[in-house]
Parts: sequence; structure tokens; C-alpha cells
Amino acid sequence: MQLDIERLIEDFGGPGRLAEALTRIFPDEPVSRAAIYKWRERGSLPLTQLNKLAQLAANQGRTFNYNDYLAMAPMSAATGRNHKMGDRLFIFDTTLRDGEQSPGASMTREEKVRIARQLERLGVDIIEAGFAAASPGDAQAIHAIAEQVKDSTVCSLARANDNDVRAAGEAIKPANRGRIHTFIATSPIHMEKKLRMTPDQVVEAAVRAVRQARNFTDDVEFSAEDAVRSDMDFLVRIFDAVIQAGARTINVPDTVGYSIPSLWYQRIHTLIERVPGSDLVVWSTHCHNDLGMAVANSLAAVEAGARQVECTINGLGERAGNASLEEVVMAVKTRSDLFGLTTGIDSTQIVPTSKLVSTITGYPVQPNKAIVGANAFAHESGIHQDGVLKHRETYEIMSAESVGWSANRLTLGKLSGRNAFKTKLTELGIELASEEALNAAFARFKELADKKREVFDEDLYALLSDGVGAVELEDFKFVSLKVNTETGEEPRAEIVFADEGHEKRAASSGSGPVDAAFKAIESVVHSGAELQLYSVNAITKGTESQGEVTVRLARDGTIVNGQGADTDIIVASAKAYLSALNKFHGKENWLNPQL
Amino acid sequence: MQLDIERLIEDFGGPGRLAEALTRIFPDEPVSRAAIYKWRERGSLPLTQLNKLAQLAANQGRTFNYNDYLAMAPMSAATGRNHKMGDRLFIFDTTLRDGEQSPGASMTREEKVRIARQLERLGVDIIEAGFAAASPGDAQAIHAIAEQVKDSTVCSLARANDNDVRAAGEAIKPANRGRIHTFIATSPIHMEKKLRMTPDQVVEAAVRAVRQARNFTDDVEFSAEDAVRSDMDFLVRIFDAVIQAGARTINVPDTVGYSIPSLWYQRIHTLIERVPGSDLVVWSTHCHNDLGMAVANSLAAVEAGARQVECTINGLGERAGNASLEEVVMAVKTRSDLFGLTTGIDSTQIVPTSKLVSTITGYPVQPNKAIVGANAFAHESGIHQDGVLKHRETYEIMSAESVGWSANRLTLGKLSGRNAFKTKLTELGIELASEEALNAAFARFKELADKKREVFDEDLYALLSDGVGAVELEDFKFVSLKVNTETGEEPRAEIVFADEGHEKRAASSGSGPVDAAFKAIESVVHSGAELQLYSVNAITKGTESQGEVTVRLARDGTIVNGQGADTDIIVASAKAYLSALNKFHGKENWLNPQL
Repeated sequence: MQLDIERLIEDFGGPGRLAEALTRIFPDEPVSRAAIYKWRERGSLPLTQLNKLAQLAANQGRTFNYNDYLAMAPMSAATGRNHKMGDRLFIFDTTLRDGEQSPGASMTREEKVRIARQLERLGVDIIEAGFAAASPGDAQAIHAIAEQVKDSTVCSLARANDNDVRAAGEAIKPANRGRIHTFIATSPIHMEKKLRMTPDQVVEAAVRAVRQARNFTDDVEFSAEDAVRSDMDFLVRIFDAVIQAGARTINVPDTVGYSIPSLWYQRIHTLIERVPGSDLVVWSTHCHNDLGMAVANSLAAVEAGARQVECTINGLGERAGNASLEEVVMAVKTRSDLFGLTTGIDSTQIVPTSKLVSTITGYPVQPNKAIVGANAFAHESGIHQDGVLKHRETYEIMSAESVGWSANRLTLGKLSGRNAFKTKLTELGIELASEEALNAAFARFKELADKKREVFDEDLYALLSDGVGAVELEDFKFVSLKVNTETGEEPRAEIVFADEGHEKRAASSGSGPVDAAFKAIESVVHSGAELQLYSVNAITKGTESQGEVTVRLARDGTIVNGQGADTDIIVASAKAYLSALNKFHGKENWLNPQL
Repeated sequence: MQLDIERLIEDFGGPGRLAEALTRIFPDEPVSRAAIYKWRERGSLPLTQLNKLAQLAANQGRTFNYNDYLAMAPMSAATGRNHKMGDRLFIFDTTLRDGEQSPGASMTREEKVRIARQLERLGVDIIEAGFAAASPGDAQAIHAIAEQVKDSTVCSLARANDNDVRAAGEAIKPANRGRIHTFIATSPIHMEKKLRMTPDQVVEAAVRAVRQARNFTDDVEFSAEDAVRSDMDFLVRIFDAVIQAGARTINVPDTVGYSIPSLWYQRIHTLIERVPGSDLVVWSTHCHNDLGMAVANSLAAVEAGARQVECTINGLGERAGNASLEEVVMAVKTRSDLFGLTTGIDSTQIVPTSKLVSTITGYPVQPNKAIVGANAFAHESGIHQDGVLKHRETYEIMSAESVGWSANRLTLGKLSGRNAFKTKLTELGIELASEEALNAAFARFKELADKKREVFDEDLYALLSDGVGAVELEDFKFVSLKVNTETGEEPRAEIVFADEGHEKRAASSGSGPVDAAFKAIESVVHSGAELQLYSVNAITKGTESQGEVTVRLARDGTIVNGQGADTDIIVASAKAYLSALNKFHGKENWLNPQL
């Protein structure tokens, strides 16, 4: 941040008095007059010192808001950015890359494009669309996103080798703004055990990859995998080298999710201090949530000077996931009194984006999840919100509306026509691949409107989530189902479905109607898959709601999620099971980079 | 922490060299030789300085582990505690009080006792069992827990008034160790708008409440509600006063969940520095998760010297909930290299406790939740865990087993007898109120074993979760259900259930079989409730798994959750609906304190 330090110091009575006052209230961390001259010289001071100033002011009975002292940083002609250590925080979303590495969360190209369009609407600065070298399918998905997304930078991940960088460069070619994000491991353990390379070789590979990437785009990001366990001197050396080679963003990941904010602050702070060209780049962080501190660690990095945070919608990602985009953004926004930063995010798009990602990946959001959980703004008593938060003084009010929660809105009914339907879908960011897909979707909408008087936005998301947009991939298609159950007798299901256009009929009994339906399908398909997870959520309130079923199947180490929605839960279950089976066919062996 | 500072300073070459070296690498925060003498004098230093030492050591090419310098604190005869600012972190669980304030999470007395018994097995130091003055039912639940729990301290919340303190004192009377936790708001806005009291009156009320509480127990905790927005001088004044009055734990809550770790560290640090009797008490923190930083804020307080953390299982609680017990505990355990603290928690009981709380409250845990989420230890590639984490050097390995994840274990089968069943339940911490309840449960187990070849621990939890332990509260009881559905026709359900012993029959059609079953029930009961949430989870893997259904109903501002489990999902749904209706009868008007 660029601060008018001169004026600030003056307001505290000059360097001598300020040093004295700070030392008096924080005797363990005495501040010398010389240190304060240094702040003035550098035009900045660490946020911890700012916090102390706030405390000091409070003790003196006055308010202190450092926004009052903020001045714009001068535009840097060399890079075209004016945000280095400035007041803008860049949001780098990796839902489509790191988030997709969650077991069973892999998406079709159409699903990825749909999410990318929504991320663009959300105002994400950089969309990491995938890892081009992972599979031809992923490269195509990145390419498709690069063609369609205009406002956000589209990025592909690439290991630090020629093949990966070329694949990434090709994939992002159509983008208005494209970025290549290349990485290599820098911890002794990774270099030795995984890469089997010497530190010199690692630096060389990183520099070569960054140079090669610059042939495709000016916007190159470099990550030091497992930075949390890397030697500080080596990090300084490799970052210095890649900055000289042309990297414009330096990302420091906590790959294993085991850091804590005070340590992470220290690490980022030291790097920014020590790396020679640190003022030429945007510093970035990428934190995992294994100990529940990904968001706090990300923000500690921001306090230390990082100006890009890598995060995902709903905190999706391997294991306990990544930092939640929604939590990072709302913390920075709500506590702008502390951070003094802005983002490009339209916060009212947060909840719709969360719902879309949850629907497509089949990953539910727990009710007590911050910001996007169903209870995040629900109060038993209501006193909190009404009686107290209205009078909040030191920070911005975060309201349910500000993050996009709204009452269910009636959107379409039985009499809505094809045009109204199409317009509504566009409004919701749902785009269908072809006229044929639109017709199929409209037919299903009419069917739904017959069964359910009120059709909400959520219903449309669900209606379109089970593969309508991806007609070409469907081998199995649900046709009809008949179920009979009676307490004391074994439930029985008869199902009809299409297998590559051929009608199949099957019947089975089971321990319940869902079990019977799944067994009937398996009696024909013989997939050999194991059911790992079965969950249902009602999409809207009321008993007529559609049920949205997620089925997770595993076979030979491959895990897939299938979704189905219907007002009849057994039908939704059968659809979800068929949808999961369809995904086995599209699956290839994916690579899983460990950032 | 009690550190052998002398030796530590020596290892860095003495005070002069150490001050010089630290100032060289952190020029913004120069350290004087005098400051280092002060560390030696006080026998401690702030954790931020420790972090800097670790960084300094790393720069010097050597490892630094401050555990090497830890010495035991001397036993304090005055209070019987040897843990003040020592190496023991107290875990205060408020799942049964703050967690229960989540919409629809209110529990019956039997459910609360079951969870309390499990919290005791988990090794929680203090169980906040409820808020005695909230309702006679809650007071009875605290009383029952105080009777049965022996190893953990049992605590009741109480506002700072005579009635509340008396109710709390009566409720905890049977406890081996009982605590009263009294609180009052200390922020200007709360004092003025909510309490309509002057600061002097607030201090007076707090002191009186603490004194009165000491008549019931020596173990009195005081909380300053909304401490995050309270004036520092006023906090110092009121804490000083309540310590003199006999409070032994001082809790500093971030009631609105809007703090960040660096600020929270500063606030707790300043309080511990400034409050005169701060070395006579255990400092505590209680953080809400509205911006996703409850765990990080709690741990920042610990870095600043707090030795009690208030938290809940699964992070349950109003809005975005509280700090997650499991995240706090595993962070401290895994990073003992940083914190140098131990807790009394048996971490292998974490997942069983999480499952029990989730089952009873109906609050699901999302797969990407740290520690207790289904994916927390799942890896697409497996490389992370096997290839890398085995070689982790600086911190303890956190394995799935260490937190109680285990493969499904076959526990009982069709031929298991009544004794085996009873023994297993005891092992799982499930206790039934009466012989009659055990017989009913055994009959249901036999029924389940007929339908499902393998019966796992999870199945038993589910079997016992829908009210068997609370027979006396059941007005409505499921008897039988018949369902017919066929694509193209309207689904139809016929249900038989008991209403206070009288058999009721009803039939209805609906948009799906679940809707039909619910409508059939409503055609007789006419509850007028609105269905707010409907969700299903398969309890174990495989298609024969039981489905566990949660139904949330709302009526006149009262929200209840009902659960039902069965291998037939429609039957489970009907049971859950009836279970929710039963809960309307037990509901009273609860008070919701805002900690």
C-alpha cells in the first residue's frame, strides 16, 4: 500500500513521540525512532505496525483508519500494471483445475465452459481453466474457455517442461488475455525423491520453462511447489532467476496445508524483502485447508504484500480443499478498514456461482459454511442481525443480499413459452450447445412444470445439470421406471433405458426401491462399479420440490459423480446412476499436479 | 510457555549478536539488546519473535525447534493449576450450547446426554452443556449430564443476573466438577442499546454475578460479550474487577466473527499484558466463523497466551458456526513444533464424535471439510500421501487413522444375539433409557439385518438416531407404507402410522413418492408446517445401504429437524417427517445468548 507516511507520523506527534508511545504499549517489540524514519523513507510499513497504530490511537481515545492515509501508487509503464503492492487484490480462481482434482469432480467440457462463463460474470481476474498436458480433453476445454471468455484472463497450468508449456500455450491461444502458469517443486524432499534433479537443474528447468512460456504470452506465472518446506535461500535464488527470465507473477503455495498465519506472513514477507526483483512482479499465494486455515493463511500473505490469491468456489479441491474464494473476497471487502484493498468481484454473483459449482460437481455445501452455507445468514433469534449489526461501526455490513442470497423467485410457469425459457437460461448463464439441446431442455421443462406448479431458478439449474448440455456424451439415457413397495414385501423396480439408442428393459428387487432400481440397471450393464456415495438434496423448499441426487461410483481407481434431478426421487436416483455410468466412458487417466 | 531463554540466547551467540542478527533480517522491526534482556528477565517471548528466530536459524543453515528449550512451569499452589500460560491447552466444547443454537439443531435431553458422554470419551476438558435459564428442559438436560459425566467439567451458561446464576448453579450441582460461565456485553453499542446500562452498572452486575457464582462452585468463567468491539480500557477494568471477584477463566469472544488473526493476536496479547491479575486466570477465546477465520483467530489467541479455546464439533453454531474443535485440536497436535502445547483430546474419537453430532442434529458435513469431511484424507492420485507426507520432517504426520477414520467394520450380522447387540452399543457409546427401549432397538436391528447382509457401526448409529432412545416423546410412530409409481402416472402412497397409540390410515398422490407420503401424513395431521430442507445420505457404501433422511420443518418461527433411517428411502422419509412432527410438541421458546 502506498501511504502518506509523513502525514501519518505527524498525526501521532512526530517520529520521537510515536516511537516512544509504541514502545510503551508494546514493550516486547520496542520501536526506535530510526525505524520510523525508515518507514518514511520506504513509504510503507508492515501491517502489524498499522495494527499497533490502531491500538495506540484507540488507547489515546481517537479513531484511526489507515484508508485516510492511502495514496495511489504511480502507474508502472514497464509492465502496464499499477497494482503492484497497490490497493487491488487479484482473484485467481482454480475451481476448474485444482477444484476439479476433488474425487469425482471432473467435469465435461460443456460444464467447464458453463462455470467459466459464470466466473467471468463473477468478476474473477484469472481463471485457471485446466492443465492442458493432463489430457486432450482438458486441453480442448481450456481452448473452448479461451474462445468464449473475454473479460477474465484464461490460464493453463504446465509443469516446467517443453511439452507441458507448449500444450498450455496452444490451449490458451484464442484468449483475449492468456496466462501460462508453470511450476516445479523446490523442497529438498520433492527435488530428490520426485524429480530426481539437483537444485541447479531445477533452477535451469524453471528458467527455460518461463522463457519458453514468454514465447506464447507476456503473462507468465511461476509457482514453487511445496514452497512451505523449501529452503529460503533456494527460493530467493529461483524466484530471482525466473523473474529475470520474464515471470510476472510469483506464486508461493502451501501445498500440504500445514502452515499457520503468523508463519505464512513471515515467509511471504521475507521473500518479498529478499528477492531482488520483487517489486517487478505480483506476489501470489495458494493455500490448502488441511488444518482449516487456508483463508487466514491467504490473508496473512496479503498482509505481507501478496496481491494475488489463488482460491476456489466453495473451497473445492483435493482433500480439505483450497481457500474459499467467497471467504477471501468477503473478508477483504467487509474488513476494508484493515486491508484497504479492492477486488474486481461482483459479490452478488457469489451465491449463484456457488450453487452452479455445487450442482455440477455434486459437492454439497454444508449449512454452516461461511458466506454460502444455507445458515450463514440465518439466525434463530434474529437479534444479532437486526439489533446489533445495523449499528456496526468499524466495518462494512455483510448482508445476505450482498452475496447474492435472495428469496426464491418465481421465474417460469406452465404457460411460459420457448422464448421466455431461452431468455431465462441466458440470464442464468446457462448456454446450450445446440438448437437440439435447447429443444430437449424445453421439453423437460414443460414436463417439470406439469408436475410442479412453481419453477424456480434452482429448478432450472438442476434441470440442466444432468447432461442436457452434453448430449453427445450420453451412452445411457433414462426412459421410464415403475416401482412397487409395500412394508413387509421386497421392493421391486422395473426400468427402461436406452443404451446407445437401443432400448433396454430390466427388473430387480432390492432392499429398497433405489437399491432395486440400481440392481435392475446393473443386471443389464454389468459395470462392476462400487457405489461410494449417495446423497439427495431438495432443490427448493416445499414438498413438491425436485430431488437432486448425486451418485458416486468407483471402478479400478477411477471415481465419477453422476447427477439426476426429478420430482420423483427414485427416478432422479436412476438418472444419476446412468449419468455416472456415462462418465466412466469419458474418463481418461488424469495427471494430478500437487500445488 | 516456560522457555529456557538463557540457553536459547546463548545458542544464538548472546544478546548483542542476536539483536543485531534479528534487526538485520527484519529491519522494519528492529530488536534492541535491551529487549532481549527483557525476554530473559520475563522468561518468555512472543511467538512472533520465535518465528523470527526460526527464520534466522534457517538463514544460518541450522534447524531450530523451540520445544528443545521448553521447561515445565512451576505448580501454582494458590489455584491448583499448573497450566497457566503453560503447555496445556484446555478444550471447551460448546456444541450442546452454542451449537444447539443452529436453526433446527435443538436436541432432546437423551440426545444431549449421548453427545456429552461421547465428548467425555473424546477427552474434552469442559462441556458447556446448555444455558440453564433458557428453559426448564435445558436445565434438566444440564442436570442429567452433570449426573452422568465424570471426567469432564460440566458447565452452564448464565447471564450476569441472580436468576440465571442460580439456575446454572442448581443445574450443575451433581457434577464432579461444575463450572458456571457468566457473561455480559461490554461494547458501547450493546451496553447502550441492548442492556440500557451504564459502564459502571455493567461492571457492578458482572462482579455480583461472579461472586454469586462462587457460592455454587470455585470454577467460574466470565465472558465479555462483543469484546471485539469493546473499548480496551473498559475491558481491562471489567476483567480486573471480575478476577478480584473470583473468576478463574476469562473469555474473550469474537461474537460477530469479523476479526482477523493478526488483530486478534494483538487484542489478546494487550489484554494479558494490561490486566493486573492476568497471571491468576486461564485466558480463553470464542470465535465465530463468519469470514472463515474462526480457527485461525482462536490459534492466534493461543499464540498470544490464551490457554482455553471454545469450539464445537463440526464447527456447528449459529450462522457460519464456531471454531471447529477438530481443526483446532489437530492444528495444535500436528504443529506441536510451533505451539509446543498438548490437549487432553483422544484424537481417534474425533470422527466418531463428528458422525454422532451430524446424525443427531441433522447437520451434514461437506466432503471437503478439514479433518472430518469424507474427502479430507482422500486423494485422486495418492502421491501426496504416500510419496511425500511420509517424508515430512518438520511436523507430525496427520493420518486418517489418527483422527478415527477407519474402514467400515463388520460389526453384527443376522445371527447376532441380544447380548452381542447390547455390548456393541455400549462400545459405541449408545445408551438406551430403559430395557423396553433396548428391546425395541433389538427388534429393529433384527429387521435391518434381514434386509441388509452386513450391519456396520454407522448403521447402528442411524438405527438408534430416530428416537428409539426417547420413546416417551413420540406422539407419531411409523407403522407401514405402500408406494406405487410408474413413469407417466401420478405417484401414490398409502401410509399407516400411530398417533398417540391410535392407528391412522391415509393415502395421497403427489409429484413424487416422497411428496405423496408427506401429503398423506398431512391429510390426517394438518400440521401446517412448511418443508424447509430435505436431504438424504447413504450411511454406508454399497447399494444396500440404509438411507438416512433429514427433514426440516418450520411453523410459526419454530424450526425442527427430524431424522429417519431405513433401507427403503421412502420409508426413511416418512419416518423423518413423523419424527420432525414429534419435535414440535417438545419445543418451547428458547433464549439465544449471543456469544
